[in-house]
Amino acid sequence: MDQPTLQDIRQAAERIAPFVHRTPVLTCSTLDRMCDVELFFKCENLQKVGAFKIRGATNAVFSLADEQVARGVATHSSGNHAAAVAQAARWRGVQAYVVMPENAPSVKVDAVAGYGAEIVFCKPTLAAREGGLAQVIARTGAAFIHPYNDTRVIAGQGTAALELCEDVPDLDVVMTPVGGGGLLSGTALAVAAIAPRTDVIAAEPQGADDAYRSFQAGEIIPSINPHTIADGLLTSLGDLTFPIIREHVREIVTVSEADIVQAMRHIWERMKIVVEPSAAVPLGALLNRRPGLAGKRIGIILSGGNVDLTRLPW
Amino acid sequence: MDQPTLQDIRQAAERIAPFVHRTPVLTCSTLDRMCDVELFFKCENLQKVGAFKIRGATNAVFSLADEQVARGVATHSSGNHAAAVAQAARWRGVQAYVVMPENAPSVKVDAVAGYGAEIVFCKPTLAAREGGLAQVIARTGAAFIHPYNDTRVIAGQGTAALELCEDVPDLDVVMTPVGGGGLLSGTALAVAAIAPRTDVIAAEPQGADDAYRSFQAGEIIPSINPHTIADGLLTSLGDLTFPIIREHVREIVTVSEADIVQAMRHIWERMKIVVEPSAAVPLGALLNRRPGLAGKRIGIILSGGNVDLTRLPW
Repeated sequence: MDQPTLQDIRQAAERIAPFVHRTPVLTCSTLDRMCDVELFFKCENLQKVGAFKIRGATNAVFSLADEQVARGVATHSSGNHAAAVAQAARWRGVQAYVVMPENAPSVKVDAVAGYGAEIVFCKPTLAAREGGLAQVIARTGAAFIHPYNDTRVIAGQGTAALELCEDVPDLDVVMTPVGGGGLLSGTALAVAAIAPRTDVIAAEPQGADDAYRSFQAGEIIPSINPHTIADGLLTSLGDLTFPIIREHVREIVTVSEADIVQAMRHIWERMKIVVEPSAAVPLGALLNRRPGLAGKRIGIILSGGNVDLTRLPW
Repeated sequence: MDQPTLQDIRQAAERIAPFVHRTPVLTCSTLDRMCDVELFFKCENLQKVGAFKIRGATNAVFSLADEQVARGVATHSSGNHAAAVAQAARWRGVQAYVVMPENAPSVKVDAVAGYGAEIVFCKPTLAAREGGLAQVIARTGAAFIHPYNDTRVIAGQGTAALELCEDVPDLDVVMTPVGGGGLLSGTALAVAAIAPRTDVIAAEPQGADDAYRSFQAGEIIPSINPHTIADGLLTSLGDLTFPIIREHVREIVTVSEADIVQAMRHIWERMKIVVEPSAAVPLGALLNRRPGLAGKRIGIILSGGNVDLTRLPW
């Protein structure tokens, strides 16, 4: 598949507009003081299905021709992409099939089921997911919507940064978390095209730092047994997302588990919004003030807000 | 003191604009389906100090002449008004003195202290509060900012409804919680003036239903030992707020503790925002569908988001 262009991202924005929220950008003077920067939070936790993932999934599902989706759409996902594909399929009026790891948070499983998808559970390994998915596709003939390594998905994820840069011109930096790289690569393409003087910096948990290591090494180094509370960031980069990241991302920084939890709690307490651990990773990177960023205007894409409210990490 | 006019509310909006957020209005299709109405949430939980109270406090503190505030400002409050007066005083550059009940949530006490106010603790009774306040004023000469029974405070609180009605024309109903009646009376005045075909409905915990009983009786019936999780709604109506409420509010409905907690949890889970129990009371009133409201466009002012994240009611 090809890298998406700015034109692809703009078309995605138009295609998904009837379905998704244009999410607000919030500020918080307390967090600004704490991190010695000026922060602008693009609240994709307030997005439909509670995560930016609905952008890419909706763009992908509605990009397909009627005959391509007639037998449904399928995916594997630890959670938010699954809910997004299920919701997008419902909007399109087709069946969704979702392969989920059996240890996925119940709030995410319930959401997927609630959107009417058929769920197939598998062991929590990449091999089991891919095997489960292959069986589902063989059985149903559904079209596969990859969680991140897909031109249409990346273009859809890029629409959040498009809105952020429209709402807040002259950002010095845009930050996102990175897992498989769909949000990061879409963001990097959008920012490079419409705000070329703005840097893109990714933040990744230390316990799942395959993107950091791949970025340093110049080749994809997959995760082996990643371990982090940021359950949306366990996946490894794809062969479509990695080259985009290499070309357009300035830096990938890693964040400790303690800083992720601390940042998550600050966002809940100070901003009064619910974010999942993955969404808190970029702010976690800023809690230990970084001299090079002092005083900068930094946009952060808060990726999602799907957490089990009865199992909070404090 | 006199009832505020629309002119007063508009002046308040102008006066506080440099300091407070214009908060977003969020929607949630899941909650719409659940309640069989169309909901528009004015998110004062995302406001400065985490509550609408900053509007009235800022308007009051900045309405005073320099010589009136030279020796500081003082108030008694269970929490959000205290934080609001402390923050407004800091913006004005004067000292704040706050009398707080010794059982106030620690998150609220910390906030007040963090804004630089001097805190005087008292027993959790109205008499103890008023006695503590009288002592503080005698000692310091500070100007008293009443939490709700004050023209300038009511005008300030009315600015939230002003923005809501500007952003969402043609609402059938605007709902707020009711404690002392500052938010409710300000909302009722604003809505009556700029959206006269929109009804105002208040929601109150069953365990602190003095406003409901006063409204039915046609005279103020103070609370005796109110008991509810909605700790911002324990106070009784004032002689300034009550006549406004009688004149401009269509109905006061009462809500069970179970429905308050359920509504609070739905808002956290579905909307991904943090609200305190008091803010969830209007939605609690809609969970048991009300035939008269089916299909209506209902604005709800989410009053605040200050909760202790380590002591959640589920």
